[in-house]
Amino acid sequence: MTAGRIVATGTFDILHPGHLFYLEESKKLGDELVVIVARDTNVKHKPHPVIPEEHRLRMVAALKPVDKAILGDKSDMFRPIEELRPDIITIGFNQMFDEIKLAGQLKARNLPPKIVRIGKYTDGELCSSRLVVQRIIDKRSHDQHHPADHF
Amino acid sequence: MTAGRIVATGTFDILHPGHLFYLEESKKLGDELVVIVARDTNVKHKPHPVIPEEHRLRMVAALKPVDKAILGDKSDMFRPIEELRPDIITIGFNQMFDEIKLAGQLKARNLPPKIVRIGKYTDGELCSSRLVVQRIIDKRSHDQHHPADHF
Repeated sequence: MTAGRIVATGTFDILHPGHLFYLEESKKLGDELVVIVARDTNVKHKPHPVIPEEHRLRMVAALKPVDKAILGDKSDMFRPIEELRPDIITIGFNQMFDEIKLAGQLKARNLPPKIVRIGKYTDGELCSSRLVVQRIIDKRSHDQHHPADHF
Repeated sequence: MTAGRIVATGTFDILHPGHLFYLEESKKLGDELVVIVARDTNVKHKPHPVIPEEHRLRMVAALKPVDKAILGDKSDMFRPIEELRPDIITIGFNQMFDEIKLAGQLKARNLPPKIVRIGKYTDGELCSSRLVVQRIIDKRSHDQHHPADHF
């Protein structure tokens, strides 16, 4: 039996197969997948996104496993969870949530979703926005020494 | 009346809303949208893609307007067109095809598809892979002078 509504969250800065795997695996757990896309101003634990939030939202909403995508709340990350009342919240393998702390915070607000951590996508070399950015910078640096092949 | 099969083509290096618009508009013209994703080795008129072809293929195939995505032929760009026999081939607003030359090449091979150029997506600032790459480099350069905010 699958749960009804699943919520996944993330920044989704430069879309790659790791994001897609996380969303596909999340969708398999239920009937409806709603994705909360982080606001530009709320990304504080890692570098600010390269792509503006409205673009990130539009691209996530265009992916097949996603039924609906919304932007996060600017001041209270639990507000959309209260409104959506999902059966499951999924967490990506490298998302820095402490599941026990998160479960406590949800319980304190009387929110019952189960928390499921999705495994790592291993079939690919460029499965993090950080690695894509690094590759761009490496390539650019190489190209500066080989100008015939420049961006 | 819509045509049956539409074929769109491109590199789709770092997916952005401009790509999505091109594919959504292409899909509106028919019942089935097949996308031919350029091989790494065949991208010669602009810098080589940052993202490997298998990843680009997987991401394009995951987009809602896309019914099927395939990699291009390594040596003959018209071979997949011969196999797919589309009713329409769409071209993005900034794709460097000469429509008249292309129509002649198709005719020489007895391929009848209509060629439709899709307009420009104007609702966004970062709608080219080149601009996304440039923004990453600018941001990195800024961050090197402000290391507290580095990638």
